[in-house]
Formats: sequence, structure tokens, C-alpha cells
Amino acid sequence: MIKIFTHEYRVRHNEADASGRMSVPALGDCMLDIAGLHADQIDWGIDNLQHSGLTWVIAGMKFKICRMPKIDSRFKIETHVAGYSRISTQRDFVAFDDEGKIAEASSEWLIINMENRRPVFINDFVPQLEEVCITEGALPKFKHLRQSKMDISAQYQRCILYSDIDINRHLYSMRYLQMALDTFDFNYLSEFAIKEIDVNFISEVLFGETVDVVRRSDGDMHQVEMLRDGSVVFRAEMSLNFF
Amino acid sequence: MIKIFTHEYRVRHNEADASGRMSVPALGDCMLDIAGLHADQIDWGIDNLQHSGLTWVIAGMKFKICRMPKIDSRFKIETHVAGYSRISTQRDFVAFDDEGKIAEASSEWLIINMENRRPVFINDFVPQLEEVCITEGALPKFKHLRQSKMDISAQYQRCILYSDIDINRHLYSMRYLQMALDTFDFNYLSEFAIKEIDVNFISEVLFGETVDVVRRSDGDMHQVEMLRDGSVVFRAEMSLNFF
Repeated sequence: MIKIFTHEYRVRHNEADASGRMSVPALGDCMLDIAGLHADQIDWGIDNLQHSGLTWVIAGMKFKICRMPKIDSRFKIETHVAGYSRISTQRDFVAFDDEGKIAEASSEWLIINMENRRPVFINDFVPQLEEVCITEGALPKFKHLRQSKMDISAQYQRCILYSDIDINRHLYSMRYLQMALDTFDFNYLSEFAIKEIDVNFISEVLFGETVDVVRRSDGDMHQVEMLRDGSVVFRAEMSLNFF
Repeated sequence: MIKIFTHEYRVRHNEADASGRMSVPALGDCMLDIAGLHADQIDWGIDNLQHSGLTWVIAGMKFKICRMPKIDSRFKIETHVAGYSRISTQRDFVAFDDEGKIAEASSEWLIINMENRRPVFINDFVPQLEEVCITEGALPKFKHLRQSKMDISAQYQRCILYSDIDINRHLYSMRYLQMALDTFDFNYLSEFAIKEIDVNFISEVLFGETVDVVRRSDGDMHQVEMLRDGSVVFRAEMSLNFF
């Protein structure tokens, strides 16, 4: 049983923004991908769970970003399970290349019943947690965010469409983050770098639903909320720095 | 000088739709990626051109799709230059796996001046066209589409945001196609398969501009137009079949 799983990625044009550097949601895509590869390898993959009417969902993430790789550069991600409770597991990621660390992230996962969409006890379905988990050096968990008191600086409304929906038949997790960053001017995100983001996935969003995406800002601190019928379904808080 | 360039891809979760099969725009991402890899290899890459204030832009594509690969499956794409004129080149793609052909596509490319956004004579900048081109067996070109007489069946309006913009600082080509497919219900695109699409990229779209996306349909034939201030900037026509 491989405790630490590693995989190599290459930054494609479609994963970069106008600056030519990989976007944070695209890095997140790679992290979710390697999470799936590792889970398959230790027989916890989504394919296996779906046979029992279950699936993995992500509850939150915390990214710390040193620098974003440029188009066509190669980097590796290393991942392992860094902790668990009765209903959740923590999975950590470190992305790095020959010049050192690119970014790190922690993530929290639940297993839900696909019918009633409620979490189940993880140990009932993945009994090998203890064998695979490395708790030493676990990365800090994401903050549970509350609505910020900063002023609203941008907002838009959007309907959830075909390309937003993933195999779990709900809004794809990294699409929430992409929609949050879409409250920014592309010049701002090309000139400033995201240093840290806390992400809270609060509620599933389904095809055809309409959400409001609202950003509150104070200098280079920002909080983005996504709301459906006035109820918060997602929150992210981030700080940006000059490159 | 490698005339036929091959590269392997793996379908990630974020490249699949609710059906678990790769989406057409995600397959297009891979085709644009391998076009870039091949161009770099023969010294026509975007990096090289940008030093001269130039860049590649795509004018149109025609996809024929046999079947879409599922999440986690591996496939290869083979590409070559299949023709050229004074201001454009044709590049063909074939995607295949161990079971045979997945899809094929032809594409037409221009080199534009990044300042005035107008095309230049290709031979002035990539003189080796003759050496690298294989005209035999060239795939059929995309149709130049006119507005269909079918009835409007769906439409939405959308502002072009941060994640839509690529390194050329305009709407990313596969995002036009994704926005076109976003006029469909996700159940329809999960049950029916796109067999053929002709795509016309008519005009660049910039950050902050608002577009209307309008679909006209008759049975399983569909045309999608994207309009900015009433002028057409993109058209795609597609036929769908049962899986």
C-alpha cells in the first residue's frame, strides 16, 4: 500500500491565465486528479465507492502558493492522507519542481450517500485508514470562514450550466473557485499573485440553479461568497501579493 | 524535422462531463496542446513568434467524433500540417487508443500581428512549410457557416471574465465551444453524443465584453451563434446521435 503517491504534470495553455502562469483552479484540478489516482491505488476510488451508492466530496481546502509554474513546465505533486475522523479524512498535497516547492495544500473529504447526499462513517467503507495515514507534519487545515465585514467590491450572477457539472452531477469543486476568481479583473490577477486561500465548500449546487458571486475586499485581502436564494453555498478568503 | 507528432493524454475528472466521458472542448484542449508542442518542436511555437510581436490564432475546426474516452483512460493524438496558403495553414489531428479511432479534426490557423491583430503572410515567418507539410489524405475543412433558419431553442447572456482569457489576452478558443455547449441541458449531452461539429472563430472577444449565446435547433441538428453588440463573433453547427 503506497502511503505517499507522486505524479508528474505539465502545464498546458488552457491551464494558464493571461500571465502565462498556471491558474490556481488548474493546480487544484491536478491535486484532485492525484487524489483520485491515489485513492484508486488503495481501492478507495470513486468507481469503487459508486458501486455502493457512495462518493467522495470535498469539504474545504487551504492553499499556500510560493510561485505558479509557467506554460509547458513540468512539476510533480506528492500526496498522502494526513489525518482522519469518523466522518472525514485530511489529504495533503505538495507541488514542486527542480527549483523547489511551488505550492502546498490541505484538503478535507467526506464520503456521502449519493441518494440522500448525507455523509457516512468513513471507517465503514475504508477500513485501512490507519495503515495509510501519516499524521506527522500534517499541513494546517482550512479556516471555517464567516462573512467578512469588508465592503462589497464586485459581484455577478450566473446560472449553473452543462460544463459546470461533474460526474457527481453537481457543480465541480474547482469551478466554485474559478467562479470566485472571476470576480477579479484579469489584469489584477496577472500582476498580483495569490499567496494563500482558504476554501469552504458549504453546499452542493445543481444544474440550472442560479448563484450570486459576491466579493468583499480591503486592499489585497478578499473574501468571495457564492449564494443560492440568499443562502451561502461557498466561501473563499484569499490574500494577494505583488509578484 | 518531425512531420508527424504524437503525444499521449489521460482523461482527468475535470475533463469529463456528467456522463464520465471526456467533453469535446477538453478533447480540443488536448489538440491545441499538441499543436503547440509540435510547433515548438519545429521552431514555430508561440514563444518564438511572440518575440516578433506575432501569435497563432485559430480560424476554424471540424471535429468528427467516433466515441469519447472515459475518465482515466489513455489515448494518443497524432498531428501534422496538412496544407497551407499564403495566410493560413491546415493542421489535422487524429485521436486514437488501443481500440481504434476516437475522433479526428482539421483546423485552420493564421499568424496575426499582436498590435493590429491582422494576419501576416505565413511564409515570411515559417519558411519551412513545404518541408513539413503532408497534403495527402488531408481531412475535410470546416464549413463556413451562415445563420441557420432553424428556430431559436435556447439562449443566454454572459460577460467575459478572468478565467475565459488566455495568454493571447482574448477569449480562449475552446471556451467559445464550451459556452456554445452550455446552451444544452446536461442530461441531453449525457444521453446523446456529438458526432460532428463545424466551428467558425469569426472575431476575437476581449475581457469585460458581453456576449449573447443563441442556439437554433431542429431535432438533433443545432447551430450556436455568439454575438457581441448584435455582430456574430462565433458560429458552430453540430449533429448529435444516441450513444
